[in-house]
Amino acid sequence: MKKYNVAVVGATGAVGQTILKILEERNFPVKNILPLASARSNGNTVEFNGEKIKVQEAMPSSFAGIDIALFSAGRVVSVELAPEAVKRGAVVIDNSNAFRMDPEVPLVVPEVNPEHIKKHKGIIANPNCSTIQMVIVLKPIHDAARIKRVVVSTYQAVSGTGLEAVEELKEQIKAILNSENPKNEIYPYPIAFNTLPHIDVFDDTGYSLEEWKMLYETRKILDDDSIGVTATTVRVPVLNCHSESVNIETEKKLTANMAREILSKAPGIKVIDDPQMKRYPLPNEACGKDEVFVGRIREDFSVNNGLNLWIVADNLRKGAALNAVQIAECMLDNALI
Amino acid sequence: MKKYNVAVVGATGAVGQTILKILEERNFPVKNILPLASARSNGNTVEFNGEKIKVQEAMPSSFAGIDIALFSAGRVVSVELAPEAVKRGAVVIDNSNAFRMDPEVPLVVPEVNPEHIKKHKGIIANPNCSTIQMVIVLKPIHDAARIKRVVVSTYQAVSGTGLEAVEELKEQIKAILNSENPKNEIYPYPIAFNTLPHIDVFDDTGYSLEEWKMLYETRKILDDDSIGVTATTVRVPVLNCHSESVNIETEKKLTANMAREILSKAPGIKVIDDPQMKRYPLPNEACGKDEVFVGRIREDFSVNNGLNLWIVADNLRKGAALNAVQIAECMLDNALI
Repeated sequence: MKKYNVAVVGATGAVGQTILKILEERNFPVKNILPLASARSNGNTVEFNGEKIKVQEAMPSSFAGIDIALFSAGRVVSVELAPEAVKRGAVVIDNSNAFRMDPEVPLVVPEVNPEHIKKHKGIIANPNCSTIQMVIVLKPIHDAARIKRVVVSTYQAVSGTGLEAVEELKEQIKAILNSENPKNEIYPYPIAFNTLPHIDVFDDTGYSLEEWKMLYETRKILDDDSIGVTATTVRVPVLNCHSESVNIETEKKLTANMAREILSKAPGIKVIDDPQMKRYPLPNEACGKDEVFVGRIREDFSVNNGLNLWIVADNLRKGAALNAVQIAECMLDNALI
Repeated sequence: MKKYNVAVVGATGAVGQTILKILEERNFPVKNILPLASARSNGNTVEFNGEKIKVQEAMPSSFAGIDIALFSAGRVVSVELAPEAVKRGAVVIDNSNAFRMDPEVPLVVPEVNPEHIKKHKGIIANPNCSTIQMVIVLKPIHDAARIKRVVVSTYQAVSGTGLEAVEELKEQIKAILNSENPKNEIYPYPIAFNTLPHIDVFDDTGYSLEEWKMLYETRKILDDDSIGVTATTVRVPVLNCHSESVNIETEKKLTANMAREILSKAPGIKVIDDPQMKRYPLPNEACGKDEVFVGRIREDFSVNNGLNLWIVADNLRKGAALNAVQIAECMLDNALI
């Protein structure tokens, strides 16, 4: 079997470390792994298949001989280095928002729109975490009944911000339980015992970029600009795994049972939906899992053809690292690398 | 000024203690205060105006000579003892769900439907916490533009469950930070670092009673059965103050600016809405405050005449104790006691 030289850019971050773990778990055909990061992480090591490997500073020349580069070091690094990697013959799978809305760049969730990959010109974008877990559930419903409108409110974990945010939440909680004042650097307010209706930056419309992503990325992935999405994105004091309360209106009527049946046959989804037996998706149970979990499936009696859904997934795995590795796998399976 | 004998049933609970504090703060004309609770709390004391007062076991004879009885000890106690209090001449303001949907019992938020109070036959019901903070914001919008439909997702604090739930969350967090397994007794799963889409009991429709309350209580308070409400109610690891993401559709068009102006003039509401300056309602800032805070006011571009709102309030105060005391004040002001 052919093996590939794989670079992971942002290898010391929360998503980068999860990418390394997932490449191992799934026996991705790695010839050499090259962990890259900013100069700050130079000299650090990461583990891969039991070996300690030195992290190198990411620069254009790093990508010589690389077949696949998985980027997860933020927008600025992707804008600067992804084209350099492509120039040197690598395929880039980019987890930042740098190229997601570029019409030349496919935005892919392998269970939803794998056919978009083949149009790539070197870069394939990984969608935002909150979009991935929603769109994987919307797709089979859209195919069956055409979705007209989505109203979504999110409950997003701090791991989506990074390892420093996970530490900040823990430290704030310790401070509060010791009757001390919590300190905050990563978020504008303490996140401990709080909810922050603020993810990414706001524009003049009053929406945050995270909220717009849920509209525009969903339309691009589902290849349907007629879908309306309005989002309220909220950070909650959860370490890992995002939850979403999703209300949809469809053109054709779907009962809750029909939706449950459609979703239970769809790829990448696990239906957990027996609330009277206390079975519904939970962040604590989704941690470390690959599936997107959906439950609380109910007809919305306030509108014709409405459904409510509760969607939970591991935002570091399916919301980021796993989806990126699946894109790479999909390319290998279709001889696109 | 006339003074009144006031009984607080459930005086040792989270809401009961807040009622005592609010009666003090607002100089409610109390002649004698009678803290009542279950036999379990017999012999405990509570503080009122600097005095320690013995808690007595609540029983029918407790209410002899009582003018106003504020009940907050759960449905079973209210069903048993509220009629006994009324029989003995007291006016009952009941914080449980025992009488809320009884057509003979007014369900009141003083800023919204004070005129309903005068139809009382001895009992006035205090709405559910999640309904109170929503309906106080819906009312001025309904008056201006008629609300057709509401889609709400809640982020509810553990204090709504009671003091034991507050302790459970703290103990679970300590356990997890010490790498121990968290124990749970109050909730079916640990609430620490988790979200639980489960408040109150579920019925065959897949909805929880908490979710149905948000529909039926809203209709009763606004006196309009044409309003549609679909709710997803979720417990989050916040100690106190509920947040709500509320999407509404109105008959007449309201811009975000019009909504902001209407809400900033409405009673009981404080608009905090400048997200680019990091100003939006937060549970941490609402704690101990009387107002219902609203922000993130945006037009929903996915539908005609849609608005998104983010509503936060202290669920122990405006969501329960304060609203009950305000009902009593309203009755005194209108010579209804």
